[in-house]
Amino acid sequence: MSEQPESSHANHVAVVDLLGALSYAQLSGFGALAGDAQLAPDLGAKSEVARMAAMVFGQFEQVRARLESLGADQVQTMAPFVDAIDSFHERTRPSDWLEGIVKAYVGDGIARDFYAEVAQYLDAGNRSFVVELLRDEGQASFISTTVRTAIAADSRLGGRLALWARRIMGEAIQQAQRVGVERDSLTALLVGGEHGADLAELGRMFARITDAHTRRMENLGLTA
Amino acid sequence: MSEQPESSHANHVAVVDLLGALSYAQLSGFGALAGDAQLAPDLGAKSEVARMAAMVFGQFEQVRARLESLGADQVQTMAPFVDAIDSFHERTRPSDWLEGIVKAYVGDGIARDFYAEVAQYLDAGNRSFVVELLRDEGQASFISTTVRTAIAADSRLGGRLALWARRIMGEAIQQAQRVGVERDSLTALLVGGEHGADLAELGRMFARITDAHTRRMENLGLTA
Repeated sequence: MSEQPESSHANHVAVVDLLGALSYAQLSGFGALAGDAQLAPDLGAKSEVARMAAMVFGQFEQVRARLESLGADQVQTMAPFVDAIDSFHERTRPSDWLEGIVKAYVGDGIARDFYAEVAQYLDAGNRSFVVELLRDEGQASFISTTVRTAIAADSRLGGRLALWARRIMGEAIQQAQRVGVERDSLTALLVGGEHGADLAELGRMFARITDAHTRRMENLGLTA
Repeated sequence: MSEQPESSHANHVAVVDLLGALSYAQLSGFGALAGDAQLAPDLGAKSEVARMAAMVFGQFEQVRARLESLGADQVQTMAPFVDAIDSFHERTRPSDWLEGIVKAYVGDGIARDFYAEVAQYLDAGNRSFVVELLRDEGQASFISTTVRTAIAADSRLGGRLALWARRIMGEAIQQAQRVGVERDSLTALLVGGEHGADLAELGRMFARITDAHTRRMENLGLTA
């Protein structure tokens, strides 16, 4: 921990928990995207979505290295979060290609915002690691283009996919809350402790996540 | 093509076809491994197999760059090989985790040997690109350890998995033959042309692939 002399023990536990939750979100996200690639309608789309999956796995590896530098084993740190995140994926199993990529776009966006928001309560070194890692570099522009094109060709799709995206949002928020209460360290970070948020701030955090979700829906050409 | 001044037109076509077939083998192999990760019995195994999938995708990206430098579009070059390779995967769908990783180990090994053998008939630059790319760096030692441990714990598994691996071998050889005859350029490479193999050499090539398969079976603790 020589890199972060400011880290308290509570911060250390919270960092490890947050990176563990993020790791399992990434490992599952990788699996979901790889599954979407199997549903792709052509080789170009299949390659693009497989590329997104591999990119998520690359981030998972960066988190593993970070956890190692903190003396933590990634596999162990993921365990407490498996149930919450698996249950999200079980409750949002896409029935076709477009549902799959809308889920990836909307779900990954919410997850990214959530982890970046929680990281605000960590020490500076780990905060900037998480924020840099999750920076949106427009990797998913392939998805927004594909979805917009599909809706343009069949307007009834817009309604169905908007409904689907709202369901993803609802389930993702529930998952975020479950992750937040799964471990005392994260709960303390979010709703108390010396540097933690208060409930009003927590409300503002979820409002920001909702706003960003609305913008992403617009990018897809969907009504939030 | 300034890199390979010795490349004839026939060689160029064969290189592009071979890299196209290899690309689709890698893209499908990525999908199969990512599917195996979903069947993994624990988080450590899941992470390991996802890591192997991401590594295969990294090689797919290297082939893409190579194809681009040859003025070819990877997506287009894959198309002629989709049926043969998809049919291999449909005919060898694993029913559980161990079948999945045995298939990955045995099938990837055969594919790697096959593409490296065919690359022997290309110009020096492309030959060494393929051979270096497919060099076995022991990435799959996780699989051999896992399979040996499982067989040690339940001896009846050995018979079932040996039968399964023999089926993979049979289907893979058929797939290799289909890939070889799918395109005139590859057929010419393998059974004729100025620098092509003759039928006796082709027989020796399949004998070498079979020998390597037998060694891999031994690594897994299976009877070939």
